[in-house]
Amino acid sequence: MRKNLLPALFLLFPLASVADEGMWTIDNFPSGAVADKYGTDIDDDWLRSARLATTRLENGCTGSFVSPEGLVLTNNHCIWDCIRNLSDEKRNLSDDGFMAATRDEERRCAGHQISVLIGFEDVTAEISRATAGLDDAAANEARKSRLTELESKCREAARDRLHCEAVTLYDGGQYFIYRYRRYDDVRLVFAPELDIAAFGGDPDNFNFPRWCLDMSFLRVYQDGKPASTPDFLRWRRSGPEAGEPVFITGHPGSTNRLLTSSQLRLLRDVVYPLWLLRYSELRGRMLAWQNTGPEAARIVQQRILSIENGIKVRRNQLKALHNDEMLAVKAEQERELRAAVAADPALEAAYGDAWALIDGAVEQHRNLYEEHLFIEGGAAFGGDLFAYAKTIVRGTAERERPDRERIRDYRETALPGLEQRLMADRPIDKDYEKLRLAFSLEKMREWLGPDNRYVRRVLGKESPQSLAERLVDGSRLDDVGYREALWREGAAAVRASEDPIIELFLAIDADARALRKRYEDQVEAPLVRGAEKIADARFRIYGTDIYPDATFTLRVTYGAVQGWEERGESIDPFTRTQRLFERTTGQRPFKLPASWTRARETLAPDTPFNFVATTDITGGNSGSPILAADGALVGLAFDGNIHSIAGDFWFDESLNRTVGVDTAIMLEALGEVYGADHLLRELSISD
Amino acid sequence: MRKNLLPALFLLFPLASVADEGMWTIDNFPSGAVADKYGTDIDDDWLRSARLATTRLENGCTGSFVSPEGLVLTNNHCIWDCIRNLSDEKRNLSDDGFMAATRDEERRCAGHQISVLIGFEDVTAEISRATAGLDDAAANEARKSRLTELESKCREAARDRLHCEAVTLYDGGQYFIYRYRRYDDVRLVFAPELDIAAFGGDPDNFNFPRWCLDMSFLRVYQDGKPASTPDFLRWRRSGPEAGEPVFITGHPGSTNRLLTSSQLRLLRDVVYPLWLLRYSELRGRMLAWQNTGPEAARIVQQRILSIENGIKVRRNQLKALHNDEMLAVKAEQERELRAAVAADPALEAAYGDAWALIDGAVEQHRNLYEEHLFIEGGAAFGGDLFAYAKTIVRGTAERERPDRERIRDYRETALPGLEQRLMADRPIDKDYEKLRLAFSLEKMREWLGPDNRYVRRVLGKESPQSLAERLVDGSRLDDVGYREALWREGAAAVRASEDPIIELFLAIDADARALRKRYEDQVEAPLVRGAEKIADARFRIYGTDIYPDATFTLRVTYGAVQGWEERGESIDPFTRTQRLFERTTGQRPFKLPASWTRARETLAPDTPFNFVATTDITGGNSGSPILAADGALVGLAFDGNIHSIAGDFWFDESLNRTVGVDTAIMLEALGEVYGADHLLRELSISD
Repeated sequence: MRKNLLPALFLLFPLASVADEGMWTIDNFPSGAVADKYGTDIDDDWLRSARLATTRLENGCTGSFVSPEGLVLTNNHCIWDCIRNLSDEKRNLSDDGFMAATRDEERRCAGHQISVLIGFEDVTAEISRATAGLDDAAANEARKSRLTELESKCREAARDRLHCEAVTLYDGGQYFIYRYRRYDDVRLVFAPELDIAAFGGDPDNFNFPRWCLDMSFLRVYQDGKPASTPDFLRWRRSGPEAGEPVFITGHPGSTNRLLTSSQLRLLRDVVYPLWLLRYSELRGRMLAWQNTGPEAARIVQQRILSIENGIKVRRNQLKALHNDEMLAVKAEQERELRAAVAADPALEAAYGDAWALIDGAVEQHRNLYEEHLFIEGGAAFGGDLFAYAKTIVRGTAERERPDRERIRDYRETALPGLEQRLMADRPIDKDYEKLRLAFSLEKMREWLGPDNRYVRRVLGKESPQSLAERLVDGSRLDDVGYREALWREGAAAVRASEDPIIELFLAIDADARALRKRYEDQVEAPLVRGAEKIADARFRIYGTDIYPDATFTLRVTYGAVQGWEERGESIDPFTRTQRLFERTTGQRPFKLPASWTRARETLAPDTPFNFVATTDITGGNSGSPILAADGALVGLAFDGNIHSIAGDFWFDESLNRTVGVDTAIMLEALGEVYGADHLLRELSISD
Repeated sequence: MRKNLLPALFLLFPLASVADEGMWTIDNFPSGAVADKYGTDIDDDWLRSARLATTRLENGCTGSFVSPEGLVLTNNHCIWDCIRNLSDEKRNLSDDGFMAATRDEERRCAGHQISVLIGFEDVTAEISRATAGLDDAAANEARKSRLTELESKCREAARDRLHCEAVTLYDGGQYFIYRYRRYDDVRLVFAPELDIAAFGGDPDNFNFPRWCLDMSFLRVYQDGKPASTPDFLRWRRSGPEAGEPVFITGHPGSTNRLLTSSQLRLLRDVVYPLWLLRYSELRGRMLAWQNTGPEAARIVQQRILSIENGIKVRRNQLKALHNDEMLAVKAEQERELRAAVAADPALEAAYGDAWALIDGAVEQHRNLYEEHLFIEGGAAFGGDLFAYAKTIVRGTAERERPDRERIRDYRETALPGLEQRLMADRPIDKDYEKLRLAFSLEKMREWLGPDNRYVRRVLGKESPQSLAERLVDGSRLDDVGYREALWREGAAAVRASEDPIIELFLAIDADARALRKRYEDQVEAPLVRGAEKIADARFRIYGTDIYPDATFTLRVTYGAVQGWEERGESIDPFTRTQRLFERTTGQRPFKLPASWTRARETLAPDTPFNFVATTDITGGNSGSPILAADGALVGLAFDGNIHSIAGDFWFDESLNRTVGVDTAIMLEALGEVYGADHLLRELSISD
């Protein structure tokens, strides 16, 4: 057990000069402190250019423009679903890789959307006004309604040309409206073979040393033509030097650094163990199912890697939360903040009840957790068909209500994206659907118990397996035309549908909505109210030079290329090509694709391949550009080391590392392995 | 979260009058306190009779003699492997049940052994002498050697007619030699269908209300004839009354109530999470594999239930260890004991360093845990073939060394049982073997990493899957004749074997033995020394009216038939037949066998089926007789309620319940459902 107590101490205080900590919002980047430490000059122009060249992949990743004609660099693992959807029994693009020789060959990624942050507006004061004087549950509804209204107002002002999205920062300390330019015609340009993109597979995932060419190119189109993207990144051929300062822009998904002790305990006691049990079993089912034939293998190959990635994350998060010493440090920080609040009567009156609010919400959440999770939450009704059914049933019903009264998932500003995903023409494998649905029904019965009223309503006298088979076999929701018809015809048609999945969802929807309402009123409402108060108290006591938890919004982080010490040994920050060839076994996941075996003699053995840096990132930063101080692209973030997972709760500069692909190997591979001269010509490369 | 702090307070103190706590050794039963509470008279004769009628099933269960001709009552789930081994594609005894119409039809359970405790001797003083003045590692070896010698001496004195076994109590506070009469010809007499024995399957497991006929009959034979067993239990037809005091004799496997805080944290942080991840995935693999065909389903059906049982236990143990309040109580008890030791210079000199010894051992264990587990421990090399290889390679090598220098698994007194298991002629399914072996190799690589030296030695350039297939396909260890030949011919022949599994085990054995030695010297040695000191200190400070942790040795526990409160509702202590029929869905695991559907009208709807009692039991007590104060059999223990799982760490009388089968339904089912008149005649039944 690691006992270094120092790093977490910086968490709640204004930037100390030492640690490369923080996922900073673009308008609050600590340029001065970074200049003091690294001698760099990150000014507003730099940040503006970086912002406009950085893209958000709406499926949960980051990318960057690397040409004026809409070319986007991201990770390979960010577009696995696109690669899979474009494959079939005859052609497996995951195994074989893909390269469009001409623009005509670039192939649409159904349902993909890419966004760029154009501007933002602080609406904290408006939200405060909307919720003032209301009890927690009423405030929670008023807050959401007002955010929906503000989004609509923003969208109208932009005459529908921008996507407007409400953003909560500091768990409720600030509210913003972000304006994005959104591209919904995204096409696949280049993807290497999975065997080199994810070389080492799950065994190497989150490990370093590492050899992954986890890259791909997409292109955004407008009106059927490559979009014009004048703000794009230039490549530096050589990649970064050891010790060189680097910067990462991107959209980190979520962190939990500002949670209270009671919230952390809920994760440790309930949330993570249940998640790990579910997904470990699902992993086992998918691994065994994969052995039933090559089509099954093709369908679940990347999905298994994604699940394995999630398991590694969650088990190391759980391990972090078993670090009693770090949790004691966090508890001590909490006590200090509470003492500072209590010492000032005005602060005490305004914020003193915040922790009791949160503790009460956590207690309610403990009681409600399993029923909510398995009926309304993330573990309910697995598979794509049920997800379609939920969108159709809920969406058509909500559409009939005024915008501000809807569940926010179905507000007007959200509908275009939602419709695009619903109408995306993607292949559905019914056997895989049965596996997912039967699994979720079995877990529902396992965790809620066979006598639970929801379980009885869902299963009746059927077994999970037989019910799943009947539903999937009988459903037409795999037909995009049928989905489109239901969506167009609206709630009455949906209620009249005889599709068995629609019928089951309709039968459970009132229960599910009631659970959602209970969650919102009893858990979410006091949680947000308490978090708002704590955030305000922090601003009042510690000032505003602090960064918010990650929320899949644009952030900038800084650091340097640097290894770390592991069990007394020094880890070099770079890997090189030669060791990749030494390390291959000929068996997956340590098997090289034929293109690489063939190119071996033409590749320089000492080209830097992957490298690590002290930058503070997390999931969602996948595909982020790694920039030099002058804004040049020197790498592509795709992972963290194993210690980076504890970064969910605290940043430990001595151990936490970003893992990136070096521009040197990307450019060399494009030229020598893939003969992608047309792409190299499109890039802007300097030495 | 439950916050009742009271129950654990009794743990370390002499028997308080309130809680029905304790798995008492037969020589230290608190008859006086029990008489005070329940007005019963449990004297030495009572205890002697109960001891001689209670049997240990060497596969990890308990049973009891219920006729003078060797008839043994135990659970159905205790003999699943026997039922499976006697089944084949044509006849599935698990689905169909089994009843021998005559003694000739009783069928041998290969490898099964049943033992009865005949006597015991305290050898604590001899062990203290043997280890006095030695450092921890040397003391650890001397202790084991001396125990081996004492066992051999005992066996010689019994002229090989008894099985002698060293027993450690109070984690090292006492050492005993136990003498058992052992029966190694065990035959199956009666087993109901799995669908009624385990009605409700995993969903109902550890739950109550409950309807399981989890019973079976075996018979022990001597010289080919039913053994004479004059000490046997009489049945009371009516089962217990609500509130009636009851007693359970049996062999609880293990509890962890005396562990230090650092040991509990190791379980919480490392041991349980890893176990749960492994077995959840294995469960998923087996569930998916089961769908590949009826033979696969037959082979893994009960094994899946066993794994699911283990998962439910472990996840609730982990949940218990996330109860920070209970852990704080335990830490406080520890502080009190340490303070009492520190207050007396003589005690401090003798025992003061005990906790530091244990904390150091735990720290070493943390470092060593994964390599030991995956190379030498319980997660290494899955499947029966590898288990055979380990027994053959290690056993033939160890046999050549003097008894007292051997690894204790291979000491002379252990060899007969070991040989019987090795030579048992059981069917081996090679596909299932591949599943188990590939899984263990994949987990080894996952947890130790692909670059670990042991992993490289085992896998070379092969993948876990291809290596497992090659080894299992090439091995002859499924042939009992081949195993027998290797065992007989000895170490030289084994070293010359070209069996690929033997070869791989030989190649890794030096590494595995080195890890074992490191574990023994760095973990086990200080752990045992520390635990001995703490146990002695407890005896000195609190006296000897305390019970030791469970060790799969004979214990007696007491309590009363009584429900409990759950979320404000009162749970009745009995279930009855009528609700069983209402609860069936026609789908497994809520499907009734045809025999029960047919008999429905002849069964009394209000017969008590299962019941709960406040008795303190744990795994290993499965199959234990539940006795009335007069020694009559009134029930058969087969489970605990969900709260009983926290009983691993503390006993909470308000929640912890044993679940048993009522004699009333057992007798009625034997008569009305199974027409087992010949068995009913053999039993001794009173009203």
